[in-house]
Amino acid sequence: MSEYRAPVREMLFVINELAGLEELGRLSGFEEATPDLVEAILEEAAQLAGEVIAPTNRIGDATGTRVEDGQVRVAPEFSDAYRQYVEGGWAGLAGNPEHGGQGLPFLINIAVEEMWQSANLAWSLCPLLTQGAAHALEVHGSDELRTEYSPKLTSGEWTGTMNLSEPQAGSDLAAIRTQAVPEGDHYRISGQKIFITYGDHDMTDNVIHLVLARTKDAPEGGNGLSLFLVPKRLPDADGNAGDLNGVKPISVEHKLGINGSPTCVLSFENAVGFLLGAEHNGLACMFTMMNHARLNVGLEGVSIAVRAYQQALAHARDRVQGSALGHEGRVTIIHHPDVRRMLMTIKAEIEAMRAVAYVTAAELDRAGHELDPQVRAAYQARVELMTPVVKGWITESGQHLTSIALQIHGGTGYIEEAGAAQHYRDARIATIYEGTTGIQANDLVGRKIIRDGGAALTSLLDEMGQFGEQWNPSDGLASVRDAYVGAVNDLRESAAWLLANYKRDATIAGSVSFHLLMQMGLVTGAWQMSRAAICAADKLAKGGQDEEFYGAKLVTARFYTEQILPRANAHGSAIRSGGETTMALGEEQF
Amino acid sequence: MSEYRAPVREMLFVINELAGLEELGRLSGFEEATPDLVEAILEEAAQLAGEVIAPTNRIGDATGTRVEDGQVRVAPEFSDAYRQYVEGGWAGLAGNPEHGGQGLPFLINIAVEEMWQSANLAWSLCPLLTQGAAHALEVHGSDELRTEYSPKLTSGEWTGTMNLSEPQAGSDLAAIRTQAVPEGDHYRISGQKIFITYGDHDMTDNVIHLVLARTKDAPEGGNGLSLFLVPKRLPDADGNAGDLNGVKPISVEHKLGINGSPTCVLSFENAVGFLLGAEHNGLACMFTMMNHARLNVGLEGVSIAVRAYQQALAHARDRVQGSALGHEGRVTIIHHPDVRRMLMTIKAEIEAMRAVAYVTAAELDRAGHELDPQVRAAYQARVELMTPVVKGWITESGQHLTSIALQIHGGTGYIEEAGAAQHYRDARIATIYEGTTGIQANDLVGRKIIRDGGAALTSLLDEMGQFGEQWNPSDGLASVRDAYVGAVNDLRESAAWLLANYKRDATIAGSVSFHLLMQMGLVTGAWQMSRAAICAADKLAKGGQDEEFYGAKLVTARFYTEQILPRANAHGSAIRSGGETTMALGEEQF
Repeated sequence: MSEYRAPVREMLFVINELAGLEELGRLSGFEEATPDLVEAILEEAAQLAGEVIAPTNRIGDATGTRVEDGQVRVAPEFSDAYRQYVEGGWAGLAGNPEHGGQGLPFLINIAVEEMWQSANLAWSLCPLLTQGAAHALEVHGSDELRTEYSPKLTSGEWTGTMNLSEPQAGSDLAAIRTQAVPEGDHYRISGQKIFITYGDHDMTDNVIHLVLARTKDAPEGGNGLSLFLVPKRLPDADGNAGDLNGVKPISVEHKLGINGSPTCVLSFENAVGFLLGAEHNGLACMFTMMNHARLNVGLEGVSIAVRAYQQALAHARDRVQGSALGHEGRVTIIHHPDVRRMLMTIKAEIEAMRAVAYVTAAELDRAGHELDPQVRAAYQARVELMTPVVKGWITESGQHLTSIALQIHGGTGYIEEAGAAQHYRDARIATIYEGTTGIQANDLVGRKIIRDGGAALTSLLDEMGQFGEQWNPSDGLASVRDAYVGAVNDLRESAAWLLANYKRDATIAGSVSFHLLMQMGLVTGAWQMSRAAICAADKLAKGGQDEEFYGAKLVTARFYTEQILPRANAHGSAIRSGGETTMALGEEQF
Repeated sequence: MSEYRAPVREMLFVINELAGLEELGRLSGFEEATPDLVEAILEEAAQLAGEVIAPTNRIGDATGTRVEDGQVRVAPEFSDAYRQYVEGGWAGLAGNPEHGGQGLPFLINIAVEEMWQSANLAWSLCPLLTQGAAHALEVHGSDELRTEYSPKLTSGEWTGTMNLSEPQAGSDLAAIRTQAVPEGDHYRISGQKIFITYGDHDMTDNVIHLVLARTKDAPEGGNGLSLFLVPKRLPDADGNAGDLNGVKPISVEHKLGINGSPTCVLSFENAVGFLLGAEHNGLACMFTMMNHARLNVGLEGVSIAVRAYQQALAHARDRVQGSALGHEGRVTIIHHPDVRRMLMTIKAEIEAMRAVAYVTAAELDRAGHELDPQVRAAYQARVELMTPVVKGWITESGQHLTSIALQIHGGTGYIEEAGAAQHYRDARIATIYEGTTGIQANDLVGRKIIRDGGAALTSLLDEMGQFGEQWNPSDGLASVRDAYVGAVNDLRESAAWLLANYKRDATIAGSVSFHLLMQMGLVTGAWQMSRAAICAADKLAKGGQDEEFYGAKLVTARFYTEQILPRANAHGSAIRSGGETTMALGEEQF
């Protein structure tokens, strides 16, 4: 019913023209990442995504998951797709070459990741979490642990999880109670974890849990937490999955969406666990994974919107309703202006969001591979600033876009068999897990803006400002430039307001944080759309280029600045109104 | 898990202070509608809604509906609630006294309707459609038909439906193919209808269908349609439900939400039908119901948001996570600014939407009961202008608010057992049925603005403008006044732009229509919030009033103008950018 065809051309445009693949390829370690190789990789991934993974999307939603004899079962089609994914070597694309990975830039991985997510969001969570676990192990694991576990996580032969939440500890990790008791070279872990995505499944013969727990006599709060590696099955003498450890899936949740993926309650009963990093340093270790994981989850807003868009577009091209001036008889609904408005809105926001996500991924690559430590640090600061924006803004928007895609279907959109509703349900999780939008917004204003006195943000604003000043627009783009410059200035005012006022009252930063996150997303989106338009105008001026593709870039950039970007200023107004009314009511006045 | 307590006080405030119950009570026919009676009615309705209907909401979602031996079955709990509703005389609250109705203002009915909808949206659709059918019959039925059917529809003993959609005819009613062949004093109806809400059920022993069909040799398109009354069972000699007519439920849809309500495919096979109104005048007859029905469906945006809000509020008061400055230990999440922002957003938008919906309902009452025909006509024009705004803006916002309510729950919100997800799923239909938002926006710009050269809109703008000019704000409300006046001026610019430009290109009106609808909703919302704030300030100045309630009104009005209203200007910017990019791409460029 709903097919998926990866937008390889769009992805390559962003990778090459906006995220700067060529420059990245000059960095040590990335020499192999040539434009030709990347194109070949994307074409191959597109085939796997479209032909193998995408057809499992509806099946997983209908089948769901279940616990059977202490073992979680997923749709058999998921296992088959996963096997082909592992056999194709996709799991280790950006993995450490020492452990069998290909060491390609995260920028390439994120494009491939977008395909898996669009093809089947529920399925894609398992690869995503496995890469996160592999990465954390690389950074914090002892040599012994890395030798034993890294190759199998890098190849995807075993999968990984993040075990954070407990019933009383959701956003508030400091409230975690799971206990770790030392015993020889390892610990014994006991407690209950909830909301564990792919906490158990039957796609592979082992699952490696990364578990936040509290050692005995550890300080209260977040500073008492340590991170442990707890395998479902302990490796035997040959390094293969051996005896069961003390981890049991108790139940799987009945969710609004992503029904193909098991969301588990896990019970740890005296399970053998190995310390990652130092004792009491668990939160910091967990946060190592966060930049990667949050960028990847942010990307889900792009991916699910793409899937929903493709289906809505097919419907709009197919469904005949009403008439239109200049056309004989009944017309397909893509001829109706309001349907066009909806399609353009989805298209323009997807392009802005994808560009921001990919550019941030490339910055993460540079933060790791640039030679100059100062340059590395600057990229690191930029990535840290943008990570909550990518996670928060893109997932919020992605959700809204799946709603518009459903709307394009009219009454059919509300019928489950049509499939549009699944995207709408699936997308709804992305603003919640891996830190809610509120948590992202808090991270943004607290850790990423106020903590460095606005330095990283000022650097971004200056760069965006200079870009606007130096932009001498060709015909047709003057209005885009003006709207962009206005929006950057408005964002600058919001930032200045925050830095001047947050000390007045402890609640002010939190009251305006969501609006600042959204404003930053919309404005950085406009920056990338402007860069795309300039590039397209250049290509068109040179002639001989694909006029349809680059012509569309000009129109889409204009649409974005005219119809989407004004929302940024609305967020700015909300910020500068002061947020005092947010906390003004007594609890009983609600 | 999720209880519902009708916000009677909020409703009475709007009814008395904003919608002008006292003035309404001076009109002929409405003398009984005294504030005391209305309060008593609302308290009684609140009891039925909270204690009887609300507990069936989760049950209906879990049970769903099914076809069994050619008969649709709904949850037995629905039948019991419906019986109590009929026995309490609620069905005929605003019905014609000649047929057993109480003839009370639609303003009162809409408040009661809000309660049914909040309590159980899926259930409430049956009363809603029955009232619509009863109203259409009153206006268009012959004396004979009215004698036979009106008392039973007015009392709710029998229920009603609207049969419009066919597979090829959704928004495009002109494409309807169902046939009507004359036979003596009646017709024979044959064809298939889809998406028929409560098209069949086992709560009552008869269902009265209003069916749009095409008589033989009728002109093509909408002008060839006629409206027919087709009972499920033909009345016997005593007027009771007798033999089955030729209408059969074929199947019920598997939907995203409102699962307690059957959405039927109905097959009409030579069914006996009776003409309502004149032949070929079916669309006009159907549109008689539209103002009522669209206001009622618009109201659903308020109602479902209220239910979701109450649950989110209870969660925010209960769930302990994290700490807050000035509070010892862990705190409930209502102490966190971003949670407050979400609660305030829902609260403020609900109050604005309810006020606009109720005020429009009161205007509808006046359009029918004022003595002076010119005054009646002015109210009628206002109601017609505002109807698509109430339907479109309120349902779009209501959906968004249920999403925020889910977000307040964090991970729990995504788990079906928690209930927040049901509201989110249920709300999603409201922007689709009874005319999608696109259809409402089209109606607004085409029939309600361009057709009269902007007269009705100008009258509204002038009234809102004068209100702003005459408003000499007390301390604390100056910023509200200024923001309001700015927003009205911005809307005026949007309207002027549309009227000056729509002739340039046939697609312009449709390209900007959605934004104009949303801008009108947000600005008329600000008008009512301002009126509420002025009233509250007066009450507080007089002293001795409920300071908590009226104090909250001042804060909420400020929050609305500071954090919600700026979106109106964003829609204004989008309108005045011209919408040219909306239609600029070729179909293949998407």
